[in-house]
Amino acid sequence: MSFVKQLKNRWIQSNRMLCIGLDSHIDKIPESLKSSATPLLDFNKQIIDATHDLVCAYKPQIAYYAAQGAEGELLKTIQYIHENYPAIPVILDAKRSDIGATSEMYAKECFERFQADAVTVNPYMGGDTIEPFLKYRDKGVVILCKTSNADSGEFQDLKCDGVPLYQIVAKKAATEWNKNGNVMLVVGATHPEQLGEVRKIVGEMPLLIPGIGAQGGSLKDVLTQGRTSDGYGLAINSARGIIYASAENDFAEAARRVAQEICDTIGLS
Amino acid sequence: MSFVKQLKNRWIQSNRMLCIGLDSHIDKIPESLKSSATPLLDFNKQIIDATHDLVCAYKPQIAYYAAQGAEGELLKTIQYIHENYPAIPVILDAKRSDIGATSEMYAKECFERFQADAVTVNPYMGGDTIEPFLKYRDKGVVILCKTSNADSGEFQDLKCDGVPLYQIVAKKAATEWNKNGNVMLVVGATHPEQLGEVRKIVGEMPLLIPGIGAQGGSLKDVLTQGRTSDGYGLAINSARGIIYASAENDFAEAARRVAQEICDTIGLS
Repeated sequence: MSFVKQLKNRWIQSNRMLCIGLDSHIDKIPESLKSSATPLLDFNKQIIDATHDLVCAYKPQIAYYAAQGAEGELLKTIQYIHENYPAIPVILDAKRSDIGATSEMYAKECFERFQADAVTVNPYMGGDTIEPFLKYRDKGVVILCKTSNADSGEFQDLKCDGVPLYQIVAKKAATEWNKNGNVMLVVGATHPEQLGEVRKIVGEMPLLIPGIGAQGGSLKDVLTQGRTSDGYGLAINSARGIIYASAENDFAEAARRVAQEICDTIGLS
Repeated sequence: MSFVKQLKNRWIQSNRMLCIGLDSHIDKIPESLKSSATPLLDFNKQIIDATHDLVCAYKPQIAYYAAQGAEGELLKTIQYIHENYPAIPVILDAKRSDIGATSEMYAKECFERFQADAVTVNPYMGGDTIEPFLKYRDKGVVILCKTSNADSGEFQDLKCDGVPLYQIVAKKAATEWNKNGNVMLVVGATHPEQLGEVRKIVGEMPLLIPGIGAQGGSLKDVLTQGRTSDGYGLAINSARGIIYASAENDFAEAARRVAQEICDTIGLS
């Protein structure tokens, strides 16, 4: 089954639009796990087991594993989700960008080596970056559009012949890159108005929404501006606010509590 | 010594502006190396030993190693250069992009784990991507500006209030991000006119130039448009054209021959 179909099924079957970011940092996990041979994997497994019925997707951020040389733990985390919770798709947050043969190698890294169902990519270099990823028709290609950070406007908001750059990216994604129906865009919760603009441009395309929780985006505004006609359409990501809800041994339970609160606010079930 | 100072020293001492890209692909190296436990490392060592006196820098592309799970061979390649040819800086081509704590983890991956002297980064997300890298004052931060690929104009050439996006990136790099003097820009050899524009904006800032060789950029035009007042200022990259000059056991010798031809055309010595 394709990633986009899996995500849509998951929305309907679980009534959840929460995506949990597995930005698992070796310095921030509970002390008791740090002596393990696979501390990030152990941490992730407990988070996943405690929250799986509350999410539409998980999104591990590769930098936290790569900085530690812990690629094996990243792969095992993704395999753990596939094996135990096969209805939940995994978006690898890697924000890769290159061209041609090199972009093919990044696609291979993300989709074949790490077995991700979808991956985030950066569009600055143009279609030459995106095309090699699109060829994996059953995988999702999640393109940065309007990101959640404070400096996102430096380039993304610049008006090119009167149209902000992020809207030009959105339009190209919708009209050129989504031929196989496997494209998704990143729009930050911190920019609800721009989220509404993107929604108008891309129709029913799924959107990945970072920036609630620690970054302060409003969930209510996200829902108002971002949902599709069926009431879904969004994978709303939170990482730090959930996975570090407690620094003690009750971290998984605390994560579940915060995740449940977000689900209650989203209010689908 | 800082990366930029090391690169400038190398230009003067070696009279070379050639950078060799170590885009070492497991499918393209000679058959005789494929049975090795470390085929990419073995390949790289022979290329490096055969060409070290002809280069100002080496630039391994991380995707080729990551797709194979060969991070160990990448690290050992970089260490091999540091140990045997300490005057030659290593630029890790990773084109990373993220923000805040995640960008810090990417910087840690590139500078600490892989011990690179410089790394390429993608500016689409703004200063939040760049700042964590800049804090490593002795390392180089090589920002994508006008890339060499055919589709680079899709976004990079868009005019924002009359100014092409790539020039806005160049200006920001020169006036805001280069406070520690550790910034460098990527400008493709395939766009000599734009290279001239960037050179006007950034003064004496070093530039990394991909796109000669396989991509067809003219070396003569690059030199005319890109050099600084002292005649240097450029790390001119070629990968495939050099490292795959022969698919047989004479690959290192063939690589040297092509590298020498490029050096002769550059004409510094």
